[in-house]
Amino acid sequence: MLRLRPLAIALLLSSAPAIAANKPTSIAAADLETAAHLRDQALHDDTAYDFVAGITTEVGPRLAAGPNDAKGREWTIAKFHAFGFDKVWTEPVTYPKWVRRSEHGEILAPHAQPLVLAALGYSAGTPAGGLDAEVVGFPTLDAFKAADPASVRGKIVYVGARMHAHRDGRDYGIGSAVRTGGPAIASHKGAAAFLLRSAGTDDNRLPHTGVTDFTGATPIPAAALSSPDADLLERMLAAGKPVTIHLALDCGVEGEYTGANVIAELRGSKKPDEYFVMGGHLDSWDPGTGAIDDAAGVAIAAGAAKLIAGLPKRPARSIRVVAFANEESGLFGGKAYAQAHKAEIAKAVLGSESDAGADRIWKITASVKPQARDAVAQIAAVLQPLGIEYDASEPGNGGSDLSAVHAVGMAAVSLHQDATRYFDWHHSANDTLDKIDPEQLRQNVAAYVVTAYLAAQAEGDFGSKPGAWANEHE
Amino acid sequence: MLRLRPLAIALLLSSAPAIAANKPTSIAAADLETAAHLRDQALHDDTAYDFVAGITTEVGPRLAAGPNDAKGREWTIAKFHAFGFDKVWTEPVTYPKWVRRSEHGEILAPHAQPLVLAALGYSAGTPAGGLDAEVVGFPTLDAFKAADPASVRGKIVYVGARMHAHRDGRDYGIGSAVRTGGPAIASHKGAAAFLLRSAGTDDNRLPHTGVTDFTGATPIPAAALSSPDADLLERMLAAGKPVTIHLALDCGVEGEYTGANVIAELRGSKKPDEYFVMGGHLDSWDPGTGAIDDAAGVAIAAGAAKLIAGLPKRPARSIRVVAFANEESGLFGGKAYAQAHKAEIAKAVLGSESDAGADRIWKITASVKPQARDAVAQIAAVLQPLGIEYDASEPGNGGSDLSAVHAVGMAAVSLHQDATRYFDWHHSANDTLDKIDPEQLRQNVAAYVVTAYLAAQAEGDFGSKPGAWANEHE
Repeated sequence: MLRLRPLAIALLLSSAPAIAANKPTSIAAADLETAAHLRDQALHDDTAYDFVAGITTEVGPRLAAGPNDAKGREWTIAKFHAFGFDKVWTEPVTYPKWVRRSEHGEILAPHAQPLVLAALGYSAGTPAGGLDAEVVGFPTLDAFKAADPASVRGKIVYVGARMHAHRDGRDYGIGSAVRTGGPAIASHKGAAAFLLRSAGTDDNRLPHTGVTDFTGATPIPAAALSSPDADLLERMLAAGKPVTIHLALDCGVEGEYTGANVIAELRGSKKPDEYFVMGGHLDSWDPGTGAIDDAAGVAIAAGAAKLIAGLPKRPARSIRVVAFANEESGLFGGKAYAQAHKAEIAKAVLGSESDAGADRIWKITASVKPQARDAVAQIAAVLQPLGIEYDASEPGNGGSDLSAVHAVGMAAVSLHQDATRYFDWHHSANDTLDKIDPEQLRQNVAAYVVTAYLAAQAEGDFGSKPGAWANEHE
Repeated sequence: MLRLRPLAIALLLSSAPAIAANKPTSIAAADLETAAHLRDQALHDDTAYDFVAGITTEVGPRLAAGPNDAKGREWTIAKFHAFGFDKVWTEPVTYPKWVRRSEHGEILAPHAQPLVLAALGYSAGTPAGGLDAEVVGFPTLDAFKAADPASVRGKIVYVGARMHAHRDGRDYGIGSAVRTGGPAIASHKGAAAFLLRSAGTDDNRLPHTGVTDFTGATPIPAAALSSPDADLLERMLAAGKPVTIHLALDCGVEGEYTGANVIAELRGSKKPDEYFVMGGHLDSWDPGTGAIDDAAGVAIAAGAAKLIAGLPKRPARSIRVVAFANEESGLFGGKAYAQAHKAEIAKAVLGSESDAGADRIWKITASVKPQARDAVAQIAAVLQPLGIEYDASEPGNGGSDLSAVHAVGMAAVSLHQDATRYFDWHHSANDTLDKIDPEQLRQNVAAYVVTAYLAAQAEGDFGSKPGAWANEHE
């Protein structure tokens, strides 16, 4: 037994954090071997698929604060218990309750035609009986921003920006900017309502809903047209005659709702207070059943954790799975988690959320301290047979809700799904189980189980500490 | 001037038909050259695309007997006049008027979920307030046919037969058999209602409507589920607990309606009473705007005729374009045309209708007299640069409505469109302009203009004569 004198102890204690912070984080060979075994096991395990099939069949759409919000939570809690987690609990999440009752649109002139559209989250309703107004069209959000308010006052603004499919889904930046920002600008300019070409990459007559942001603006009616309906409207606008639309949206905010994040944990064998966190969000938009967005994310994390639960011994650190509440209307689950856990954020050693469907993961990126980059490379080496490359040139914010946790100091990795087809289905009625390929989903679980297990076993941390991550590291 | 004696004249007249019938039909080299020129011109002409864009934008859905039936007809008559036809007229078509007012379905148990469905043409409505009944599922129509009536009495029958995509669209035989025949069988067995997996090849949450046939049966409520909804129902059925559905269809037959075939003609310069006939049908199902089914067919024929109208001289025979009324609910337009013209069917020397979308034509087949096969081969040689092969081993019935005309004696060719994607969109809300590739559509017009011009110029006929074609030739 080594005995230290009091001074030596004091010195050691005071320098310990500095030493730990400077020492490269590393992963033992035996752990890499176990991770490779878990990876291969995952490629033959359909726990995640069965989870998505179950929740989409037995619960269905899970609009935040909607009739299935609690049902989805209870279903998930029961499933987490069945998966053998050591602890399952919930943490409250409170947010405004937005309700969609009905929506209807039609072109009145110059050629009467029905329109297929979906109200956006936080859209105001129209007056009872709807409103009729002329449409003013813009090809891009910038063109609309530059418009003289007098040209749109009392009219329906339409913005027709287009997205194209890319593996990295980058055009969602275009579509989501129009959807999120356009309606408030229209409100400020005095428009009667706002329509957009759906933020999607498909040509189906199915609109893509999604949230908009009226912070600082008076909510007005706002809806997305399906791509063929946007084409139709644009053809009429291009013909030069005034285009008049009848819009009737019955929707709006009805007070507040308190839901919950559902959290499950495998308790670490050596450092139970430290944990790797992964997950997805439990809420979905209502036209589909929320399979790719985001039952898949919760299922991937739960499927990975269940494989780790099957090991003879718990890993050193805990493994935490979070099924976040209400991601869709403003990252409420992630923000609540960050708020509740920011004081002990250093214990959240690393995190990664899956929220881009279930197509193959092709890239890992990380926002970790420099001394942990080699450990990420070690993880990436085990992921490599899955077709995943480590792109050390880009940060990884951990994904949607966990980006809010990352923002308060948690180190994060991002496992990037191929998003080529994701925005064909995202936020539309087409977000259903059949869009998930079981083989692709298994590859996702394989990537998560490797990352989770190795983060939980790593010698040294990844740089999590309280404070704004961006200021500290980037 | 040649003068003949009376006896010689008598002999000539009496033997003329036999001589004409036996002499091989042929096409002159100069005509082949003109046809090749028309073909190449068609590849740079967007008349057909502009037609489809116009009618889908300015008229929209054209449900037979629906609010746009007359509007579509008037739009087309005006367009035909503008295209320079020598004569445009209508011929009445009378049929039962079926009306779709609203449709709603949901699974009540074991897991409440909304269902996306579309009532079938001729479906009965449910009682006011809808009906609730347990579902009995069958994988195929044959399995349902074999079912004991006691097992389905008072229940909702579901048949989940699947179609796969093929260039020749052959699986529509599976889907349309379920849709057309299933509901009447369900009625005979005492079922409360009938549901099917949409007769389609896509995975969109958009149902494919279409006609069903209650001849000899009492109409019952009948509807098609979208593919993801069919999957959902099948998963619940597979789980083994009783599945109950609430179905509320407000639809049904409301007396009769008289619409019309719209017919346009370029008058032949030598044999104006004889004609080549081509066309499509003007009616469409109501969820989409009827672009591929079948504005495209009318547009292809009109675009081809317009190119021929631009020649310095009219071809020997007339060129007739027919925009048929109500093909969708039972070939009413084609049958009316056949009835009105069967006495002079020998004058309809050849016909071909386009009713399988607007993807590239890849094959020509013909039902002509043996002595006209060489002429078809001559036509096919001009089509060959378009990627079209002549398959002499199969008949060609002329397509949907014209099959009814072929059945009473008209010789026919079929120009087969690639149907790989057609049943992704067919009869659904996805039948919109964006599904048409202008380049593919031009290839279609090129094929039709060649066929029309050469049939109108051919020396000799193709075998049309009054009577049932099949009995005479096949």
